Amino acid sequence: MAMAEKLTGAARDAALARLPHWRAAKERDAIERRLVFRDFSQAFAFMTRVALAAEAADHHPEWFNVYKIVDIVLTTHDADGLSQRDIDLAHKIDAFAADFGI
Amino acid sequence: MAMAEKLTGAARDAALARLPHWRAAKERDAIERRLVFRDFSQAFAFMTRVALAAEAADHHPEWFNVYKIVDIVLTTHDADGLSQRDIDLAHKIDAFAADFGI
Repeated sequence: MAMAEKLTGAARDAALARLPHWRAAKERDAIERRLVFRDFSQAFAFMTRVALAAEAADHHPEWFNVYKIVDIVLTTHDADGLSQRDIDLAHKIDAFAADFGI
Repeated sequence: MAMAEKLTGAARDAALARLPHWRAAKERDAIERRLVFRDFSQAFAFMTRVALAAEAADHHPEWFNVYKIVDIVLTTHDADGLSQRDIDLAHKIDAFAADFGI
């Protein structure tokens, strides 16, 4: 797989504008989203779908879970910042969340 | 289910002595363990086993994952600290980790 290229400038702005559920992280070149499910069962079912997609793309989230809350941070270590791989995974995550009505 | 009772004193010390992979958290009455797997696939397989056990016991971890690393914190909100439920889950987690040779 080619090295991921860091997103900057107008390309970065345009990509983020299409991800309204995500916000830029404060301390790092990354994006983050908090998802609140009905319970742990829903949260982990969601995480399982994300895990499968992440593994298939060989691009993985940083994430924290407690009960029904899932906090996700996406960044690309190879690119030392945000890349198209994060944007692609974010859109998949949004689609999986939408399947749970959130 | 009965309310979980907070572990204190000698009972707490004895329980922690039987969990050498775990350490007391610095800022909270909780225990924590970091597990490093071979890759994300192993880490998430482990997390899935923990999730099933946690759901069955209705007692859930706080956990963070990035690629092959899983950081787990166990505490009991109902007890405002460490309880036997955390100790029981910690032993299950250790058994699942041992199945991966860690």
